Amino acid sequence: MEKFYKEITPDGFGIAIREKEVLFSDNSPYQKVEIIDSESKLGKILTLDDLMMTTEGDEFFYHEMITHIPMMNHKEPKTVLVIGGGDGGTVREVLKHDTVEKVVLCEIDGMVIEVCKKYLPTIACQLDNPKCEILVEDAIEYIKDKKDMFDIVLIDSTDPIGPGEGLFTEEFYTNVKNSMKKGGILAVQSESPIAQSENVTKMYKLLRKVFPICKAYSSNIPTYPGGYWTWAYCSVDVEPLSYIDERRCEEITKTCKVYNKEYHLARFALPNYIKNLVG
Amino acid sequence: MEKFYKEITPDGFGIAIREKEVLFSDNSPYQKVEIIDSESKLGKILTLDDLMMTTEGDEFFYHEMITHIPMMNHKEPKTVLVIGGGDGGTVREVLKHDTVEKVVLCEIDGMVIEVCKKYLPTIACQLDNPKCEILVEDAIEYIKDKKDMFDIVLIDSTDPIGPGEGLFTEEFYTNVKNSMKKGGILAVQSESPIAQSENVTKMYKLLRKVFPICKAYSSNIPTYPGGYWTWAYCSVDVEPLSYIDERRCEEITKTCKVYNKEYHLARFALPNYIKNLVG
Repeated sequence: MEKFYKEITPDGFGIAIREKEVLFSDNSPYQKVEIIDSESKLGKILTLDDLMMTTEGDEFFYHEMITHIPMMNHKEPKTVLVIGGGDGGTVREVLKHDTVEKVVLCEIDGMVIEVCKKYLPTIACQLDNPKCEILVEDAIEYIKDKKDMFDIVLIDSTDPIGPGEGLFTEEFYTNVKNSMKKGGILAVQSESPIAQSENVTKMYKLLRKVFPICKAYSSNIPTYPGGYWTWAYCSVDVEPLSYIDERRCEEITKTCKVYNKEYHLARFALPNYIKNLVG
Repeated sequence: MEKFYKEITPDGFGIAIREKEVLFSDNSPYQKVEIIDSESKLGKILTLDDLMMTTEGDEFFYHEMITHIPMMNHKEPKTVLVIGGGDGGTVREVLKHDTVEKVVLCEIDGMVIEVCKKYLPTIACQLDNPKCEILVEDAIEYIKDKKDMFDIVLIDSTDPIGPGEGLFTEEFYTNVKNSMKKGGILAVQSESPIAQSENVTKMYKLLRKVFPICKAYSSNIPTYPGGYWTWAYCSVDVEPLSYIDERRCEEITKTCKVYNKEYHLARFALPNYIKNLVG
């Protein structure tokens, strides 16, 4: 009998993937960590607390969007902070920008990093890059006293339950803002507009208390609830689409499966139902 | 034990929906027709030959996109042909355009129409509109001798297997072209760019043999494979985005859950992997 990995949201529908075998399963101090191999085009899957985080087959849909939309909008991103993102996919995309001198990955769960290095090498491939500094610590604590350090901050977190919960507060967003340099840009994954969409509305209300510029962008992710996802672009002083770096855009587009300039320009045009959610 | 309606593509993944009960199941002369009630936000589901066609909860993602992208691009669409589309969702969207004098629905399978009228009234609600003429016949035969009749043609078909197969041929597209008036626009559902993407490439090759203007547009559909879908915009003489009717656009946007002008303008900006598929 066929076995399926299923992930059903409270809305009563979700994804099913033909399962081959569980390659890794353990509990870290923070969460249940699993790698599942599938009989599908998606290949191997990372789950945390039984929620799919990334798959070999469709990870680029997410990682290209969280990274290149803010980074192309910055004239010279040198220092980047990735919060969460232990699978390494966001770091891999960040390091495509040759302006970057240092990317700090602040991931609370060392087990996620180790497991992804072993089982998901196409995603974790840049975690050993000398420009990447890995901190296995709680971003809530790390960010508290950081001032004027980062050109770009990317919050590549889990959902607002479990270890990720404290990453969805006004205090945390304020500390993130203080850690950013003048002209800095934050992108933060802001949940599915289709499943549990009330989370989206809450997040944008909080983010707008902290950032004068806060706009949603959206794109398709096949394995996430509803096949669609949103990110918040936030800044104190740089409007989205006010700048796109032509040179990096042209070079990096060649390496991307999704990202290109026209697609970038189109990302802030939202369907009515998302406009209603994000206000 | 929970029961799930599952639809898994040859790629090994797909959708799972909490199932309540099968409300209708029968074989028409053409296909198996079922209405399944779900324990989910999606409500009732129409399946044909065990493939999901539409759901009460997310039908608007598809119907708004197949209809308003071509229709807003036409200065005064009076006569419209819908091929397939027996659920009535496309006809409902077409009739939001007050310029329309007549919409012909050419659906081969009368059972689909009757079942949708009974079980999916929010979708089929305009099939009794006096401006709607319903022909229960094979569009391949119907279209053969039609010349210079329609401002807009919408091919709202099933996949290129089973009864829909003949709707994916050069001969059929040529007859469709001949049925269109000067300035006419065709939109045709052109399959998932994620599951069985080779079908997409084949379709665009065929369409380009017939139509000098043929461009892909794309949008999210939660219940379709990969959560993403493409449509082909085809015409002899009208480029996409060369016109958008401001008056109808403003009025109809108020009734839509997805469609608005900015979203319309953004639809032809394709991710790299779709650009590669459609050429």
